[in-house]
Amino acid sequence: MESTVSHLKRCLPFWEKLTDAQQTLLTTRSGWVTYGRGETIHRGDEECVGLILVETGQLRVCMLSEDGREITLYRLYPGDVCVLSASCVLEAITFDVFVEAVEDTRMLNIPADSFRQVMEENIYAEAFSYKTATLRFSEVMWTMQQILFMGVDRRLAIFLLDEIARTGSDTLHLTHEQVARYMGTAREVVSRMLKYFASEGLVALSRGGIQVTDRKRLREMT
Amino acid sequence: MESTVSHLKRCLPFWEKLTDAQQTLLTTRSGWVTYGRGETIHRGDEECVGLILVETGQLRVCMLSEDGREITLYRLYPGDVCVLSASCVLEAITFDVFVEAVEDTRMLNIPADSFRQVMEENIYAEAFSYKTATLRFSEVMWTMQQILFMGVDRRLAIFLLDEIARTGSDTLHLTHEQVARYMGTAREVVSRMLKYFASEGLVALSRGGIQVTDRKRLREMT
Repeated sequence: MESTVSHLKRCLPFWEKLTDAQQTLLTTRSGWVTYGRGETIHRGDEECVGLILVETGQLRVCMLSEDGREITLYRLYPGDVCVLSASCVLEAITFDVFVEAVEDTRMLNIPADSFRQVMEENIYAEAFSYKTATLRFSEVMWTMQQILFMGVDRRLAIFLLDEIARTGSDTLHLTHEQVARYMGTAREVVSRMLKYFASEGLVALSRGGIQVTDRKRLREMT
Repeated sequence: MESTVSHLKRCLPFWEKLTDAQQTLLTTRSGWVTYGRGETIHRGDEECVGLILVETGQLRVCMLSEDGREITLYRLYPGDVCVLSASCVLEAITFDVFVEAVEDTRMLNIPADSFRQVMEENIYAEAFSYKTATLRFSEVMWTMQQILFMGVDRRLAIFLLDEIARTGSDTLHLTHEQVARYMGTAREVVSRMLKYFASEGLVALSRGGIQVTDRKRLREMT
């Protein structure tokens, strides 16, 4: 477990540009929180939680439609900073997302009001926040390109390959419903495509798990 | 027609934070350009043109798929600054768009290398650039929400109402193909929906034109 100061230093490249008072403010006001798998950390329609600095675990940031469909926009890993959870501080962000823990996740939270004060006083903090938001913009554009222009087969192949690369295991303990949510599509669509992949020998399906059996051919589909 | 300095001042809120040398650099290196309706100003796969400061007219910023489909992400109007055309200067932007003139458009162009120099020297220029990119991110999220979650009927109604509000005329001189491109959908889909709208008395269709005949009911659909 890291100390508050060293985690702030690691995640905020503008740390050395802050005054002593600003560093003290962030250090004393920030708090460590842990969320369990599946728990919601931030919802657009509620009070904004402020900046989140991931220490361990994984978050996903999603958009939600009026009828409850969700699309995973991008994920955040240790060392990443979530700025969309501080949208009340960043006036250029006018949309809502929700942030959920994909696995047990420990994070440092800089409350919105403390971060607002530092951002108003320090142009480096502002530049960092908007640069980070722009990085997420780039990720969202990539996701959008996938959703709008790629076939489901290709997207599913990419998702499976990404997951086995990330987890280091050929077997993914995910339900079809979870895969569908991550991909921003319907469960039926995923189930049909997985069944097709299985019939092609690309994957083997079991209760609650998907085993990738032919990476090479999956990769050719991407 | 505005002078270069007054247009730079109007569009760049960080102008007063620049040194005399930086102001002189931007003033002497910037150039006025005019593009005709339909002309391409920036393509992701070509050299980046730098910052564009719109004086008159209108631009649209689009993403292009490998198979040539396009989606209008947002539009830019007089006084707006296009930062995605300076993506080579902004390292957090890792995706490509293209920028096209919707009508005859006059603009001031700050070349990429001059803007890079100012951005490296001046944190206020950097903060402005990323804040502007984040504003566009918000617009793209709105567009994405429309595309992913709304029905075509609702989107078409919104598009028609936006256009008549913008042009101040009930008759839009647009082909179905153009409407489809703006909406990021297929021409057939637009034609079918317009025919349905016409049968409902919402619009009247003529060669190369769409006349909105019932704003009230169109508005109820949005």
